[in-house]
Amino acid sequence: MKVKVLKNILDANDQIASRNRQILDKNKVLAINIMSSPGAGKTSLILQTIKKLKDRVRIAVIEGDIASTIDADRISEERVPVVQINTGGACHLDANMVSNALDSLPLGDIELLLIENVGNLVCPAEFKVGEHKKVMLLSLPEGDDKPYKYPLMFTQSEVIIINKIDFLPFQDFDFTAFNKVVTGLNPKAKILQVSCKTGEGIEQWVSWLESELRGR
Amino acid sequence: MKVKVLKNILDANDQIASRNRQILDKNKVLAINIMSSPGAGKTSLILQTIKKLKDRVRIAVIEGDIASTIDADRISEERVPVVQINTGGACHLDANMVSNALDSLPLGDIELLLIENVGNLVCPAEFKVGEHKKVMLLSLPEGDDKPYKYPLMFTQSEVIIINKIDFLPFQDFDFTAFNKVVTGLNPKAKILQVSCKTGEGIEQWVSWLESELRGR
Repeated sequence: MKVKVLKNILDANDQIASRNRQILDKNKVLAINIMSSPGAGKTSLILQTIKKLKDRVRIAVIEGDIASTIDADRISEERVPVVQINTGGACHLDANMVSNALDSLPLGDIELLLIENVGNLVCPAEFKVGEHKKVMLLSLPEGDDKPYKYPLMFTQSEVIIINKIDFLPFQDFDFTAFNKVVTGLNPKAKILQVSCKTGEGIEQWVSWLESELRGR
Repeated sequence: MKVKVLKNILDANDQIASRNRQILDKNKVLAINIMSSPGAGKTSLILQTIKKLKDRVRIAVIEGDIASTIDADRISEERVPVVQINTGGACHLDANMVSNALDSLPLGDIELLLIENVGNLVCPAEFKVGEHKKVMLLSLPEGDDKPYKYPLMFTQSEVIIINKIDFLPFQDFDFTAFNKVVTGLNPKAKILQVSCKTGEGIEQWVSWLESELRGR
Protein backbone atom coordinates (compact mmCIF):
# COMPACT_ATOMS: atom_id res chain seq x y z
CA MET A 1 0.00 0.00 0.00
CA LYS A 2 2.73 2.38 1.05
CA VAL A 3 4.70 1.33 -2.04
CA LYS A 4 1.70 2.12 -4.24
CA VAL A 5 1.34 5.60 -2.72
CA LEU A 6 5.01 6.24 -3.43
CA LYS A 7 4.63 4.99 -7.01
CA ASN A 8 1.71 7.37 -7.64
CA ILE A 9 3.65 10.28 -6.18
CA LEU A 10 6.65 9.46 -8.38
CA ASP A 11 4.48 9.10 -11.53
CA ALA A 12 2.84 12.49 -10.92
CA ASN A 13 6.26 13.98 -10.25
CA ASP A 14 7.65 12.56 -13.52
CA GLN A 15 4.89 14.23 -15.53
CA ILE A 16 5.69 17.64 -14.09
CA ALA A 17 9.41 16.97 -14.55
CA SER A 18 8.81 16.29 -18.27
CA ARG A 19 6.97 19.58 -18.58
CA ASN A 20 9.82 21.41 -16.85
CA ARG A 21 12.25 19.76 -19.23
CA GLN A 22 10.23 20.90 -22.25
CA ILE A 23 10.21 24.48 -20.97
CA LEU A 24 13.98 24.35 -20.40
CA ASP A 25 14.57 22.88 -23.88
CA LYS A 26 12.39 25.49 -25.54
CA ASN A 27 14.54 28.16 -23.90
CA LYS A 28 17.80 26.31 -24.70
CA VAL A 29 18.72 26.10 -21.00
CA LEU A 30 20.96 23.27 -19.77
CA ALA A 31 19.78 22.26 -16.27
CA ILE A 32 22.06 20.42 -13.83
CA ASN A 33 20.66 18.85 -10.64
CA ILE A 34 23.42 18.95 -8.01
CA MET A 35 23.04 16.54 -5.10
CA SER A 36 25.07 15.56 -2.02
CA SER A 37 25.00 15.01 1.73
CA PRO A 38 24.71 18.12 3.91
CA GLY A 39 27.90 20.14 3.89
CA ALA A 40 29.63 18.32 1.04
CA GLY A 41 30.13 21.57 -0.84
CA LYS A 42 27.28 22.07 -3.33
CA THR A 43 27.12 25.83 -2.80
CA SER A 44 30.90 26.14 -2.95
CA LEU A 45 30.93 24.23 -6.25
CA ILE A 46 28.27 26.55 -7.64
CA LEU A 47 30.24 29.61 -6.52
CA GLN A 48 33.42 28.25 -8.16
CA THR A 49 31.47 27.50 -11.35
CA ILE A 50 30.03 31.01 -11.48
CA LYS A 51 33.50 32.48 -10.94
CA LYS A 52 34.98 30.49 -13.84
CA LEU A 53 32.11 30.77 -16.31
CA LYS A 54 30.12 33.92 -15.68
CA ASP A 55 32.02 36.01 -18.25
CA ARG A 56 31.08 33.64 -21.07
CA VAL A 57 27.95 31.76 -19.92
CA ARG A 58 24.68 33.21 -18.59
CA ILE A 59 23.98 31.30 -15.40
CA ALA A 60 21.05 31.12 -12.97
CA VAL A 61 20.68 29.13 -9.76
CA ILE A 62 17.84 27.45 -7.89
CA GLU A 63 18.66 26.86 -4.22
CA GLY A 64 16.84 24.09 -2.36
CA ASP A 65 16.81 23.99 1.44
CA ILE A 66 14.45 22.84 4.16
CA ALA A 67 14.75 26.28 5.74
CA SER A 68 16.84 29.48 5.51
CA THR A 69 18.15 31.58 2.62
CA ILE A 70 21.85 31.42 3.55
CA ASP A 71 22.93 29.77 0.30
CA ALA A 72 20.79 31.97 -1.94
CA ASP A 73 22.20 35.03 -0.19
CA ARG A 74 25.76 33.86 -0.91
CA ILE A 75 24.89 33.20 -4.57
CA SER A 76 23.11 36.51 -5.12
CA GLU A 77 26.31 38.36 -4.18
CA GLU A 78 27.66 37.03 -7.49
CA ARG A 79 24.91 38.93 -9.32
CA VAL A 80 23.33 35.95 -11.04
CA PRO A 81 19.57 35.30 -10.90
CA VAL A 82 18.78 33.02 -7.97
CA VAL A 83 15.54 31.58 -6.57
CA GLN A 84 15.35 30.03 -3.11
CA ILE A 85 13.02 27.07 -2.57
CA ASN A 86 12.27 26.26 1.07
CA THR A 87 10.80 22.77 1.17
CA GLY A 88 9.39 23.26 4.67
CA GLY A 89 10.40 19.80 5.83
CA ALA A 90 10.67 17.77 2.63
CA CYS A 91 14.06 16.10 2.27
CA HIS A 92 14.35 16.63 -1.51
CA LEU A 93 13.28 18.95 -4.29
CA ASP A 94 10.40 17.75 -6.45
CA ALA A 95 9.35 18.76 -9.95
CA ASN A 96 6.48 20.92 -8.76
CA MET A 97 8.73 23.04 -6.54
CA VAL A 98 11.13 23.52 -9.45
CA SER A 99 8.23 24.34 -11.80
CA ASN A 100 7.27 27.24 -9.51
CA ALA A 101 10.88 28.40 -9.35
CA LEU A 102 11.18 28.33 -13.18
CA ASP A 103 8.26 30.79 -13.35
CA SER A 104 10.41 33.32 -11.45
CA LEU A 105 13.50 33.04 -13.67
CA PRO A 106 14.24 34.96 -16.90
CA LEU A 107 14.66 31.69 -18.87
CA GLY A 108 15.13 33.43 -22.22
CA ASP A 109 18.31 35.05 -20.87
CA ILE A 110 19.86 31.91 -19.36
CA GLU A 111 22.08 29.20 -20.81
CA LEU A 112 22.94 27.21 -17.70
CA LEU A 113 20.70 26.51 -14.69
CA LEU A 114 22.36 25.03 -11.63
CA ILE A 115 19.85 23.45 -9.24
CA GLU A 116 21.14 22.81 -5.73
CA ASN A 117 19.10 20.05 -4.16
CA VAL A 118 18.48 19.54 -0.41
CA GLY A 119 21.49 17.99 1.34
CA ASN A 120 20.58 14.29 1.35
CA LEU A 121 22.17 11.25 -0.27
CA VAL A 122 18.88 9.33 -0.54
CA CYS A 123 15.60 10.80 -1.84
CA PRO A 124 16.89 13.51 -4.20
CA ALA A 125 18.04 10.66 -6.47
CA GLU A 126 14.44 9.40 -6.73
CA PHE A 127 12.76 12.65 -7.77
CA LYS A 128 13.40 14.05 -11.25
CA VAL A 129 12.94 17.81 -11.43
CA GLY A 130 13.32 18.26 -15.22
CA GLU A 131 17.12 18.35 -15.22
CA HIS A 132 19.26 17.22 -18.17
CA LYS A 133 22.03 15.84 -15.99
CA LYS A 134 22.36 14.67 -12.42
CA VAL A 135 25.65 15.40 -10.68
CA MET A 136 26.64 14.40 -7.17
CA LEU A 137 29.33 15.50 -4.76
CA LEU A 138 30.90 13.29 -2.15
CA SER A 139 32.97 15.03 0.46
CA LEU A 140 36.25 13.19 1.06
CA PRO A 141 35.71 13.12 4.86
CA GLU A 142 32.45 11.18 4.34
CA GLY A 143 34.55 8.14 3.47
CA ASP A 144 35.01 5.75 0.56
CA ASP A 145 32.23 3.32 1.60
CA LYS A 146 29.30 5.52 0.62
CA PRO A 147 28.53 3.82 -2.75
CA TYR A 148 27.71 0.60 -0.87
CA LYS A 149 25.29 2.37 1.44
CA TYR A 150 23.62 4.84 -0.94
CA PRO A 151 23.83 3.02 -4.27
CA LEU A 152 20.96 4.78 -6.09
CA MET A 153 22.63 8.19 -5.88
CA PHE A 154 25.80 6.79 -7.45
CA THR A 155 23.81 4.94 -10.15
CA GLN A 156 21.84 8.02 -11.17
CA SER A 157 24.65 10.57 -11.36
CA GLU A 158 26.56 11.10 -14.59
CA VAL A 159 29.32 12.97 -12.82
CA ILE A 160 30.55 12.09 -9.34
CA ILE A 161 32.72 14.79 -7.83
CA ILE A 162 34.89 13.97 -4.85
CA ASN A 163 35.24 17.31 -3.08
CA LYS A 164 37.56 18.46 -0.26
CA ILE A 165 40.56 16.54 -1.62
CA ASP A 166 42.67 19.09 0.29
CA PHE A 167 41.83 16.89 3.34
CA LEU A 168 43.70 13.98 1.78
CA PRO A 169 46.83 14.31 3.96
CA PHE A 170 44.66 13.94 7.09
CA GLN A 171 42.07 11.40 5.97
CA ASP A 172 42.35 7.97 4.35
CA PHE A 173 40.38 7.43 1.17
CA ASP A 174 40.88 4.38 -1.02
CA PHE A 175 40.34 5.78 -4.53
CA THR A 176 41.01 2.42 -6.22
CA ALA A 177 38.35 0.63 -4.17
CA PHE A 178 35.96 3.58 -4.56
CA ASN A 179 36.36 3.73 -8.34
CA LYS A 180 35.87 -0.02 -8.62
CA VAL A 181 32.54 0.01 -6.74
CA VAL A 182 31.27 3.12 -8.53
CA THR A 183 32.19 1.70 -11.94
CA GLY A 184 30.35 -1.49 -11.00
CA LEU A 185 27.21 0.48 -10.15
CA ASN A 186 27.53 2.95 -12.99
CA PRO A 187 30.06 2.09 -15.71
CA LYS A 188 29.71 5.42 -17.55
CA ALA A 189 30.10 7.67 -14.49
CA LYS A 190 32.74 10.35 -14.77
CA ILE A 191 34.62 10.66 -11.47
CA LEU A 192 36.38 13.94 -10.72
CA GLN A 193 38.51 15.02 -7.77
CA VAL A 194 38.26 18.65 -6.72
CA SER A 195 38.78 21.06 -3.86
CA CYS A 196 36.31 23.92 -3.95
CA LYS A 197 38.48 25.56 -1.29
CA THR A 198 41.79 25.60 -3.21
CA GLY A 199 40.25 25.45 -6.71
CA GLU A 200 42.14 22.25 -7.56
CA GLY A 201 40.34 20.17 -10.21
CA ILE A 202 37.65 22.77 -10.89
CA GLU A 203 38.97 23.21 -14.48
CA GLN A 204 37.95 19.63 -15.32
CA TRP A 205 34.45 20.15 -13.97
CA VAL A 206 34.04 23.38 -15.89
CA SER A 207 35.35 21.72 -19.08
CA TRP A 208 32.72 19.02 -18.73
CA LEU A 209 30.01 21.67 -18.30
CA GLU A 210 31.25 23.59 -21.35
CA SER A 211 31.26 20.46 -23.51
CA GLU A 212 27.68 19.77 -22.42
CA LEU A 213 26.73 23.35 -23.30
CA ARG A 214 28.37 23.02 -26.72
CA GLY A 215 26.60 19.71 -27.35
CA ARG A 216 23.16 21.29 -27.13
CA MET B 1 -3.68 15.87 0.88
CA LYS B 2 -0.03 14.93 0.85
CA VAL B 3 0.28 16.47 4.30
CA LYS B 4 -2.62 14.35 5.52
CA VAL B 5 -1.02 11.15 4.18
CA LEU B 6 2.18 12.06 6.01
CA LYS B 7 0.24 12.77 9.21
CA ASN B 8 -1.45 9.35 9.08
CA ILE B 9 1.88 7.63 8.49
CA LEU B 10 3.44 9.48 11.43
CA ASP B 11 0.48 8.67 13.73
CA ALA B 12 0.68 4.96 12.88
CA ASN B 13 4.44 5.10 13.41
CA ASP B 14 4.04 6.73 16.83
CA GLN B 15 1.76 3.92 18.00
CA ILE B 16 4.33 1.27 17.12
CA ALA B 17 7.09 3.42 18.64
CA SER B 18 5.15 3.53 21.95
CA ARG B 19 4.87 -0.25 21.91
CA ASN B 20 8.62 -0.57 21.25
CA ARG B 21 9.27 1.78 24.14
CA GLN B 22 7.12 -0.33 26.49
CA ILE B 23 9.01 -3.47 25.49
CA LEU B 24 12.34 -1.72 26.08
CA ASP B 25 11.19 -0.38 29.47
CA LYS B 26 9.92 -3.78 30.56
CA ASN B 27 13.39 -5.16 29.85
CA LYS B 28 15.15 -2.16 31.45
CA VAL B 29 16.96 -1.33 28.22
CA LEU B 30 18.05 2.25 27.52
CA ALA B 31 17.67 2.91 23.78
CA ILE B 32 19.57 5.70 22.02
CA ASN B 33 18.68 6.75 18.46
CA ILE B 34 21.88 8.01 16.80
CA MET B 35 21.41 10.22 13.75
CA SER B 36 23.66 12.18 11.38
CA SER B 37 24.51 12.90 7.75
CA PRO B 38 26.23 10.12 5.79
CA GLY B 39 29.81 9.64 6.90
CA ALA B 40 29.67 11.83 10.02
CA GLY B 41 30.90 8.95 12.19
CA LYS B 42 27.91 7.14 13.71
CA THR B 43 29.52 3.71 13.42
CA SER B 44 32.84 5.03 14.73
CA LEU B 45 31.06 6.53 17.76
CA ILE B 46 29.35 3.20 18.43
CA LEU B 47 32.67 1.36 18.17
CA GLN B 48 34.31 3.82 20.59
CA THR B 49 31.36 3.45 22.98
CA ILE B 50 31.59 -0.34 22.92
CA LYS B 51 35.34 -0.16 23.54
CA LYS B 52 34.90 2.06 26.59
CA LEU B 53 31.80 0.42 28.10
CA LYS B 54 31.64 -3.22 27.13
CA ASP B 55 33.35 -4.47 30.28
CA ARG B 56 30.70 -2.93 32.50
CA VAL B 57 27.58 -2.46 30.36
CA ARG B 58 25.80 -5.06 28.23
CA ILE B 59 25.36 -3.41 24.82
CA ALA B 60 23.50 -4.33 21.64
CA VAL B 61 23.31 -2.48 18.32
CA ILE B 62 20.74 -2.02 15.56
CA GLU B 63 22.32 -0.88 12.28
CA GLY B 64 20.14 0.97 9.78
CA ASP B 65 21.22 1.32 6.16
CA ILE B 66 19.53 1.56 2.79
CA ALA B 67 21.71 -1.32 1.60
CA SER B 68 24.78 -3.34 2.67
CA THR B 69 25.93 -4.89 5.96
CA ILE B 70 29.31 -3.13 6.18
CA ASP B 71 28.56 -1.41 9.48
CA ALA B 72 26.97 -4.45 11.13
CA ASP B 73 30.01 -6.49 10.08
CA ARG B 74 32.32 -3.99 11.77
CA ILE B 75 30.21 -4.01 14.95
CA SER B 76 29.93 -7.79 15.14
CA GLU B 77 33.72 -8.04 15.34
CA GLU B 78 33.31 -6.49 18.81
CA ARG B 79 31.19 -9.49 19.86
CA VAL B 80 28.08 -7.58 20.81
CA PRO B 81 24.64 -8.57 19.49
CA VAL B 82 23.88 -6.64 16.31
CA VAL B 83 20.94 -6.63 13.91
CA GLN B 84 21.16 -5.06 10.46
CA ILE B 85 18.08 -3.35 9.03
CA ASN B 86 18.20 -2.67 5.29
CA THR B 87 15.49 -0.15 4.51
CA GLY B 88 15.52 -0.95 0.80
CA GLY B 89 15.29 2.68 -0.25
CA ALA B 90 13.71 4.41 2.74
CA CYS B 91 15.79 7.33 4.00
CA HIS B 92 15.12 6.72 7.72
CA LEU B 93 14.33 3.97 10.20
CA ASP B 94 10.72 3.69 11.30
CA ALA B 95 9.18 2.10 14.37
CA ASN B 96 8.01 -0.99 12.51
CA MET B 97 11.51 -1.80 11.24
CA VAL B 98 12.87 -1.42 14.76
CA SER B 99 10.03 -3.54 16.16
CA ASN B 100 11.12 -6.41 13.90
CA ALA B 101 14.74 -5.93 14.92
CA LEU B 102 13.83 -6.00 18.64
CA ASP B 103 12.33 -9.46 18.10
CA SER B 104 15.80 -10.71 17.11
CA LEU B 105 17.65 -9.30 20.14
CA PRO B 106 18.11 -10.94 23.56
CA LEU B 107 16.50 -7.97 25.33
CA GLY B 108 16.64 -9.55 28.78
CA ASP B 109 20.44 -9.60 28.57
CA ILE B 110 20.90 -5.99 27.39
CA GLU B 111 21.19 -2.69 29.26
CA LEU B 112 22.03 -0.33 26.42
CA LEU B 113 20.73 -0.45 22.84
CA LEU B 114 22.45 1.82 20.32
CA ILE B 115 20.35 2.36 17.19
CA GLU B 116 22.26 3.71 14.20
CA ASN B 117 19.81 5.45 11.89
CA VAL B 118 20.19 5.91 8.12
CA GLY B 119 22.65 8.70 7.25
CA ASN B 120 20.31 11.65 6.72
CA LEU B 121 19.89 14.96 8.52
CA VAL B 122 16.19 15.28 7.66
CA CYS B 123 13.60 12.48 8.02
CA PRO B 124 15.14 10.41 10.84
CA ALA B 125 14.24 13.32 13.15
CA GLU B 126 10.56 12.92 12.21
CA PHE B 127 10.17 9.20 12.92
CA LYS B 128 10.26 7.97 16.52
CA VAL B 129 11.40 4.38 16.81
CA GLY B 130 10.79 3.86 20.54
CA GLU B 131 14.06 5.39 21.72
CA HIS B 132 14.52 7.11 25.07
CA LYS B 133 16.96 9.67 23.75
CA LYS B 134 17.84 11.13 20.37
CA VAL B 135 21.47 11.98 19.76
CA MET B 136 22.96 13.54 16.65
CA LEU B 137 26.45 13.84 15.25
CA LEU B 138 27.64 16.68 13.10
CA SER B 139 30.93 16.17 11.35
CA LEU B 140 33.13 19.25 11.65
CA PRO B 141 33.79 19.35 7.87
CA GLU B 142 30.03 19.69 7.25
CA GLY B 143 30.27 23.28 8.49
CA ASP B 144 28.76 25.42 11.23
CA ASP B 145 25.69 26.52 9.23
CA LYS B 146 23.82 23.22 9.45
CA PRO B 147 21.42 24.19 12.30
CA TYR B 148 19.93 26.88 10.04
CA LYS B 149 19.32 24.43 7.24
CA TYR B 150 18.22 21.33 9.15
CA PRO B 151 16.61 22.82 12.27
CA LEU B 152 14.36 19.88 13.25
CA MET B 153 17.29 17.53 13.80
CA PHE B 154 18.92 20.03 16.15
CA THR B 155 15.63 20.67 17.98
CA GLN B 156 14.94 16.97 18.56
CA SER B 157 18.37 15.85 19.77
CA GLU B 158 19.25 15.97 23.48
CA VAL B 159 22.93 15.57 22.75
CA ILE B 160 24.66 17.13 19.75
CA ILE B 161 28.11 15.71 19.16
CA ILE B 162 30.52 17.59 16.91
CA ASN B 163 32.76 14.83 15.57
CA LYS B 164 36.08 14.98 13.67
CA ILE B 165 37.42 17.87 15.72
CA ASP B 166 40.89 16.60 14.73
CA PHE B 167 40.15 18.44 11.43
CA LEU B 168 40.05 21.74 13.28
CA PRO B 169 43.51 22.95 12.19
CA PHE B 170 42.45 22.58 8.53
CA GLN B 171 38.82 23.69 8.64
CA ASP B 172 37.12 26.78 10.00
CA PHE B 173 34.25 26.21 12.41
CA ASP B 174 32.72 29.03 14.42
CA PHE B 175 31.81 27.30 17.71
CA THR B 176 30.44 30.50 19.27
CA ALA B 177 28.04 31.13 16.39
CA PHE B 178 27.12 27.43 16.25
CA ASN B 179 26.37 27.20 19.98
CA LYS B 180 24.30 30.35 19.83
CA VAL B 181 22.04 29.05 17.04
CA VAL B 182 21.74 25.59 18.57
CA THR B 183 20.89 27.02 21.99
CA GLY B 184 18.25 29.19 20.34
CA LEU B 185 16.66 26.14 18.71
CA ASN B 186 17.10 23.84 21.68
CA PRO B 187 18.09 25.51 24.96
CA LYS B 188 18.64 22.23 26.83
CA ALA B 189 20.84 20.57 24.21
CA LYS B 190 24.16 19.25 25.45
CA ILE B 191 26.90 20.01 22.91
CA LEU B 192 30.01 17.84 22.94
CA GLN B 193 33.18 17.97 20.86
CA VAL B 194 34.82 14.64 20.03
CA SER B 195 37.14 12.90 17.64
CA CYS B 196 36.23 9.25 17.16
CA LYS B 197 39.58 8.87 15.40
CA THR B 198 41.83 10.10 18.23
CA GLY B 199 39.41 9.34 21.09
CA GLU B 200 39.40 12.97 22.24
CA GLY B 201 36.20 13.91 24.08
CA ILE B 202 34.78 10.37 24.09
CA GLU B 203 35.01 10.29 27.92
CA GLN B 204 32.38 13.05 28.17
CA TRP B 205 30.02 11.17 25.87
CA VAL B 206 30.45 7.95 27.80
CA SER B 207 29.90 9.80 31.12
CA TRP B 208 26.61 11.13 29.81
CA LEU B 209 25.56 7.62 28.75
CA GLU B 210 26.49 6.22 32.16
CA SER B 211 24.53 8.89 34.01
CA GLU B 212 21.50 8.07 31.83
CA LEU B 213 21.94 4.38 32.62
CA ARG B 214 22.16 5.12 36.35
CA GLY B 215 19.06 7.33 36.18
CA ARG B 216 16.87 4.47 35.01
